[in-house]
Amino acid sequence: MQVKILLKDSEIPKTWYNVMADMPTPPAPVLHPGTGKPVGPDDLAPLFPMPLIEQEVSRQREIPIPDEVRRIYALWRPTPMFRALRLEEAIGTKSRIYYKYEGVSPAGSHKPNTAIPQAYYNKMSGRKRIATETGAGQWGSAMAMGGCFFGLEVKVYMVKVSYDQKPYRRMLMESYGAKVVPSPSPDTNAGRGILSQDPKSPGSLGIAISEAVEDAASREDTSYSLGSVLNHVCLHQTVIGLEAQEQMKLANDYPDVVIACCGGGSNLAGIGFPFLRDKISGGKNPRVVAVEPSSCPTLTKGIYAYDFGDTARLTPLLKMYTLGHDFVPPGIHAGGLRYHGDSALVSQLYNERLLEAQAYGQTSVFTSAVIFTRTEGLLPAPESSHAIHAAIMEAKRADEEGTRKTILFNLSGHGFFDLSAYEDFQNGRLVDYEHPEGKIAEALDRLPKVEA
Amino acid sequence: MQVKILLKDSEIPKTWYNVMADMPTPPAPVLHPGTGKPVGPDDLAPLFPMPLIEQEVSRQREIPIPDEVRRIYALWRPTPMFRALRLEEAIGTKSRIYYKYEGVSPAGSHKPNTAIPQAYYNKMSGRKRIATETGAGQWGSAMAMGGCFFGLEVKVYMVKVSYDQKPYRRMLMESYGAKVVPSPSPDTNAGRGILSQDPKSPGSLGIAISEAVEDAASREDTSYSLGSVLNHVCLHQTVIGLEAQEQMKLANDYPDVVIACCGGGSNLAGIGFPFLRDKISGGKNPRVVAVEPSSCPTLTKGIYAYDFGDTARLTPLLKMYTLGHDFVPPGIHAGGLRYHGDSALVSQLYNERLLEAQAYGQTSVFTSAVIFTRTEGLLPAPESSHAIHAAIMEAKRADEEGTRKTILFNLSGHGFFDLSAYEDFQNGRLVDYEHPEGKIAEALDRLPKVEA
Repeated sequence: MQVKILLKDSEIPKTWYNVMADMPTPPAPVLHPGTGKPVGPDDLAPLFPMPLIEQEVSRQREIPIPDEVRRIYALWRPTPMFRALRLEEAIGTKSRIYYKYEGVSPAGSHKPNTAIPQAYYNKMSGRKRIATETGAGQWGSAMAMGGCFFGLEVKVYMVKVSYDQKPYRRMLMESYGAKVVPSPSPDTNAGRGILSQDPKSPGSLGIAISEAVEDAASREDTSYSLGSVLNHVCLHQTVIGLEAQEQMKLANDYPDVVIACCGGGSNLAGIGFPFLRDKISGGKNPRVVAVEPSSCPTLTKGIYAYDFGDTARLTPLLKMYTLGHDFVPPGIHAGGLRYHGDSALVSQLYNERLLEAQAYGQTSVFTSAVIFTRTEGLLPAPESSHAIHAAIMEAKRADEEGTRKTILFNLSGHGFFDLSAYEDFQNGRLVDYEHPEGKIAEALDRLPKVEA
Repeated sequence: MQVKILLKDSEIPKTWYNVMADMPTPPAPVLHPGTGKPVGPDDLAPLFPMPLIEQEVSRQREIPIPDEVRRIYALWRPTPMFRALRLEEAIGTKSRIYYKYEGVSPAGSHKPNTAIPQAYYNKMSGRKRIATETGAGQWGSAMAMGGCFFGLEVKVYMVKVSYDQKPYRRMLMESYGAKVVPSPSPDTNAGRGILSQDPKSPGSLGIAISEAVEDAASREDTSYSLGSVLNHVCLHQTVIGLEAQEQMKLANDYPDVVIACCGGGSNLAGIGFPFLRDKISGGKNPRVVAVEPSSCPTLTKGIYAYDFGDTARLTPLLKMYTLGHDFVPPGIHAGGLRYHGDSALVSQLYNERLLEAQAYGQTSVFTSAVIFTRTEGLLPAPESSHAIHAAIMEAKRADEEGTRKTILFNLSGHGFFDLSAYEDFQNGRLVDYEHPEGKIAEALDRLPKVEA
């Protein structure tokens, strides 16, 4: 039986799918934090090139992928879809489990799907430099590669604790030619301010965002770049789901449920939105499930409200599920899922019951990750392992119910840089943080006041 | 233009290619170190299961790949072949450069191509345990996965200095369920002997081999397993070249030169032997080039003689190119190429001028590796980067000569666990060791005396 379902270079999608064209209600506007009024393109122009701002608000259903972007996508896309036969056998399920594997990208995750077009549009718009932040390093690696391919200088503000703990990720970015500094850094007002108060600050994603935004805003040649949350990021990631739909056809199958982990929401959007289109207007009814850590349960325990995208309250206000912009989740190993908010598109679709959400603790997630490694071979990223665990749970529920389901999940990246997490798990050093309700309630008290 | 040339699961080769069927002269016998007489199957039976011993001496041209092995191969095989268009453009060559990418395997290199069948034949022969050694960890990772898939216990003796310096490789092996100990270990007589003399011994591949061999020889349920050099290992790796031949047909092209790095010789054999068949009997004339580090120039500066496979002089004698079994190469970053000898098959074919060899220093190799990363995206292993460098040099020579060549090289693995080497390179801390002649001459003086 076939294990891999492959597409040819020529089958790389020619357009991205824009879910905003098909949403039952129009997307909630993004608000200016000072005026409370919707922000316009001019407000965003200092940070982003115009083609990306246009994609941020476009209602066009199909947005063409530039040829030059498709040529670079071809270095790793179309990505393979696998039938997880050995996993199915190990857990003894009658369901069929498929996974789309994004870890074949040179940077090791789905992140280059948007880093490449972002670099391309910046280059086309005459920008010379990109400033961005990275936590664990997946996004920084992707943007470093994107910048390198288009001759753009890339400066990455890397959360200091990760900079110290994950030197391999830093070295990978440097191998692509990026400049990486630990954040807080002495290179920005924001960084200097923090350092003057606490020279040993371990940094945070919020601080790193502030530094990158300040860098970009203060230099005409420089754009800011973000690896998740924004509409244009979700748009670019839809190549995942569009390919998966073709691969499902080749497998003569169709998913009853489509699963992805969810931090900012980009890999969920990537695999899920094209299937939502089938649900909204295609006469099919796939469930699309976001999986989050129980320690940072944005969709499952947050509220749907306007909030800042960052801890430092510099960004416009997004209507989204949030745990409060100053909620600090515990230091779990799936760093990419430790975000207080969520993509506005994902949030609205969840609010409208077009998406589902589930939350799991990290010890059960790692248990499933190791089952996966020992059957399918690949070592998954801790983030992606949330999707693996949810897929296994779906299969087990189906077996209990006596049904047989087709389950598709997105394996968004490999875990080669996360092996210390596996070691902690094997040695029983991982703990679950199941009850963050008190902290969440406190953080939600500090949401900005915005007229509905 | 097409970047990736892919094959389907159903196109995984059904047989391995055994070059011994086509060699102009029969392979030189392996000799018992005590008697100087050829060893027979019974001498090897305590260490290897009979099907592998049979493959070691078989003259059958096509050896069937068991279905169960092919099903596991399908987790990553057929591997993609890439046309390196962006690299070609960057170096401005008129030649066509292709690479076969083996780093898509779950363990990150070509090593699982033989780890899986070795585990399979051991399982079929009733063995319960595998003892093996690993230096940098590529082979140990592959065997850990192989053992895991077939329910075999795997014990890896990992050279202590690597055990301390490369914890991620150890953790990967442990994630597959293998038991990893630093060598020298207190678990064997060989290890205890070394530790009693030098409790802080950093270990060596020679010591680790001694420990694994002793472990396997002292337990009936246990086999010894080796990741390179031996004939059956070279045999299993030919899936690389067999696939590449089909992919070249799909590209309507044929290589003028086929390039691979060469330590023990298995990845060179893997991509090269099927093309040698074309050269010996297929009416084509591809050059097949082994690339070694100038600090460990086995083929280019060694002699062709009987020598031990290990430093501790425990193994049978192999007729091979050698720098002397106690030659200790400098600590370059391509740990997988630091072997004093070479596969007997590779050696004999090189002696008969069917293979070529080239040697390069590590700074030029890393220079080419970074060019590759910044154009093709993938971060190559330092070992594989020797092949990249040789391919670039071939292309440049062709341009100087005004010719246009088709160049194929094997990218045998990724470099995600070797990023500290890239950092050393970027910071100017890598040095070349170009003149090991004195040390080689001394080591060659200590070759065993064997009647020709």
